[in-house]
Amino acid sequence: MKKKYQVVGIGNAMVDILSHIEDDFLSDNNVEKGIMQLIDMDRAVELYGRMGPAQEVSGGSAANTIAGIAALGGRTAYVGKVKDDQLGAIFAHDLRAQGAVYKTPMAEDRPGAETGRCMVLVTPDGERSLNTYLGWSEFLGPDDIDIAMMADADWLYLEGYRFDGPDSKAAFAKAITACKAAGGKVSLTLSDPFCVDRHRDDFLELIHDHVDLLFCNVIEMQAMYPADDLNASLELAAAKTEIVVCTASEDGAYVLSNGEKEHAHAIPTRIVDATGAGDLFASGFLYGLTAGFDMLTCARMGCVAAAEVISHIGARPEADLMALFREHGLV
Amino acid sequence: MKKKYQVVGIGNAMVDILSHIEDDFLSDNNVEKGIMQLIDMDRAVELYGRMGPAQEVSGGSAANTIAGIAALGGRTAYVGKVKDDQLGAIFAHDLRAQGAVYKTPMAEDRPGAETGRCMVLVTPDGERSLNTYLGWSEFLGPDDIDIAMMADADWLYLEGYRFDGPDSKAAFAKAITACKAAGGKVSLTLSDPFCVDRHRDDFLELIHDHVDLLFCNVIEMQAMYPADDLNASLELAAAKTEIVVCTASEDGAYVLSNGEKEHAHAIPTRIVDATGAGDLFASGFLYGLTAGFDMLTCARMGCVAAAEVISHIGARPEADLMALFREHGLV
Repeated sequence: MKKKYQVVGIGNAMVDILSHIEDDFLSDNNVEKGIMQLIDMDRAVELYGRMGPAQEVSGGSAANTIAGIAALGGRTAYVGKVKDDQLGAIFAHDLRAQGAVYKTPMAEDRPGAETGRCMVLVTPDGERSLNTYLGWSEFLGPDDIDIAMMADADWLYLEGYRFDGPDSKAAFAKAITACKAAGGKVSLTLSDPFCVDRHRDDFLELIHDHVDLLFCNVIEMQAMYPADDLNASLELAAAKTEIVVCTASEDGAYVLSNGEKEHAHAIPTRIVDATGAGDLFASGFLYGLTAGFDMLTCARMGCVAAAEVISHIGARPEADLMALFREHGLV
Repeated sequence: MKKKYQVVGIGNAMVDILSHIEDDFLSDNNVEKGIMQLIDMDRAVELYGRMGPAQEVSGGSAANTIAGIAALGGRTAYVGKVKDDQLGAIFAHDLRAQGAVYKTPMAEDRPGAETGRCMVLVTPDGERSLNTYLGWSEFLGPDDIDIAMMADADWLYLEGYRFDGPDSKAAFAKAITACKAAGGKVSLTLSDPFCVDRHRDDFLELIHDHVDLLFCNVIEMQAMYPADDLNASLELAAAKTEIVVCTASEDGAYVLSNGEKEHAHAIPTRIVDATGAGDLFASGFLYGLTAGFDMLTCARMGCVAAAEVISHIGARPEADLMALFREHGLV
């Protein structure tokens, strides 16, 4: 029997606050370029006070992935915590309006914690530097995991970022157990090289014991499985996981599965805002996988979806992704 | 002595919630195309629940104008009410980050009223249909008018929309008196043809007694001064007001002043989102006027600023307006 959800994602529920800045702004304000850095509310207020006018768009890595799958017509759900405030309402609206199921209870008052937000500073080269105030999303715990939903998923999609929270490992364990017991599979994205550094042992255990599909980029791959070259790192990962998918920016993406290695070319595009490239790659790949396409086609779908999202501001798709798949002869 | 502010704007403080929709959505949901309609919270919730994923950008007609002048390096301030909530914080941030002074006290709790918002539904032709929940902005009153600020303004810029509120006429009167007593001048935008219908008599009195510069578009002009043709309407207005500026979409803009009539051509551009066209025209015009340019140059500056803002989503400028003025040989 067909399961209710092709993919259920779990991650940090966030609203992105996007602003264009010059490179000097990053150095003047001690922001590390191109990565995600966690900040507290005081730092968030300070940085927001210094940055220029911004626009607000729903974000959150796994939520972007789920929104992308939903935009393709995939059956999806998302689990992540927001507060019952205006940003929380925006986050919930945008995900549901895209067609995803989202029913994680909104949090009540907890002193100092609001809906999470990420200040996305976009430099003229299109690179984004992320400054994340986790807020309520940090407190995702086992109680937020609906066992029936997990059992009704072909695939779980776990966001590495969400390891930055006290109860979230327990939440992940509960979700994995329920999903696998019902015959589902588990995918994980490493999210960020610093995220890998923070959680190396937990990630290794998770990957080796439970993960059927690992998403990462080249830098994360080399942080997770250090070796002489990328190929050696990929082989180390593939020895432990059924499917390894590694994105490589303008070099496209590699897929290792069943002893085979495939390569998909990147789609040339002008980078306006790199936010969400990896997230939307995962959308395309997971959509393809759960719709029964071969590995190379899945990777190509990922590349097309990633190219769409970096061609505009914001980390959610704006164009008709399925139409783009058709244009590229993928469907 | 140079006054502190070239322009002080007073209007509805709003955050725009922008979404692309098909024309069918408008008819299915009884939304009138191309105009501003006032809605209550219930209708706002209903419409928001039906519309697709959106993005949030600070808006508000006069606030957009002030942001545009600030982006040009003009000395500006804004008066308009938000609540002390997340959308209110976004509105305040974006205006200040652009360089405008904004110190209207944030409102405390008032049952049912939040920061105002405008659901901007953008059809494929780039036309926008506005659905405005006024929220706290409706309650702008005389107490919110800082007499010293008004006296320190070369020009006031009054938003016609703000006539939709019980105490706002008194607030406008207080502002006008303080500004004029100190030698300042007063401009008004008619905002919208339905706004003209709602407030015809008040507008006529205001224009004839106090307004030195009237901004409107062709439809608003013909609603305000009905006559056989546009030219006759313009002459009627010019008989009562020192400067009359009438925008005419792809036909550019007309300026009547001192018995002379000037015409500025529109700048050809692909319309992505028409939101803010009139607001940014006023930015360019008022910047030019307060910087001492002639009427035709002021109108051309308006056309360049309007063309910039309709070429992208959102009603605040993204490109460097002064650089565009240079490209067009205006400065």
